[in-house]
Amino acid sequence: MRVDVDSAGLEVLSREQCYELVGSVPIGRIVFTEGALPAIQPVNFILDGEDVVIRTGAGSKLAAAARSAVVAFEADSYDEQTLSGWSVVLIGRAEAVGQDEHGRIAALRLTPWALGPRPHYIRIRPEIVRGRRINPWAPAV
Amino acid sequence: MRVDVDSAGLEVLSREQCYELVGSVPIGRIVFTEGALPAIQPVNFILDGEDVVIRTGAGSKLAAAARSAVVAFEADSYDEQTLSGWSVVLIGRAEAVGQDEHGRIAALRLTPWALGPRPHYIRIRPEIVRGRRINPWAPAV
Repeated sequence: MRVDVDSAGLEVLSREQCYELVGSVPIGRIVFTEGALPAIQPVNFILDGEDVVIRTGAGSKLAAAARSAVVAFEADSYDEQTLSGWSVVLIGRAEAVGQDEHGRIAALRLTPWALGPRPHYIRIRPEIVRGRRINPWAPAV
Repeated sequence: MRVDVDSAGLEVLSREQCYELVGSVPIGRIVFTEGALPAIQPVNFILDGEDVVIRTGAGSKLAAAARSAVVAFEADSYDEQTLSGWSVVLIGRAEAVGQDEHGRIAALRLTPWALGPRPHYIRIRPEIVRGRRINPWAPAV
């Protein structure tokens, strides 16, 4: 098995591997800037092709910050027993999903975990896709 | 039971609850800015009092970005069965740990999961501590 390893000793994942892993977890994290400070919020999400789609409330800081800003979306999984795991980061511009697309997106069944109305959808179109796996010789998690 | 809930329907955690939860997981995520883009890297860490301490290699992007920058540290845990979970974000300035402190910090046994030398320690001194729990009436995860 040939494994591409970066300077930190982590396996470099292919774009295909990145999407496969992101699609295997229910929760990711949106990273953005809020009042010049770094901000991060966990979100549940769906993949719409290569785009990440999340739901949000109107008043949410997330909605404000993500309004056409460049954001990062991160998903990961770790196993403390084998000290193994992976992390994938997608970076791209966030945009509100137009009303004309709401019907199709709603059919993808993106159900927020939290209570309260979240009538808006935000799409992130990744321009950078980056994934790393730690201790790739341990069993997959 | 009285629960403080924010506008998004999430339970607001006390500072004490935040630190208790952060101390219960092995992996967190450092959020910073890298070339004007949002960046996020998973790290294992220890708590030194209320500070977060991580290890890094000399050439790491993390070390460069964190050089006295304001960063966020996030930890979370989710349970897909009960749709419950929590997230804690600590925001503060990152600083290199001086050689004079290395002995004491080394004794705290912060062992990196990844291979490769990571001789430097970075300390984050949180000025903002923020935690939220989703579906607080579900069993704790």
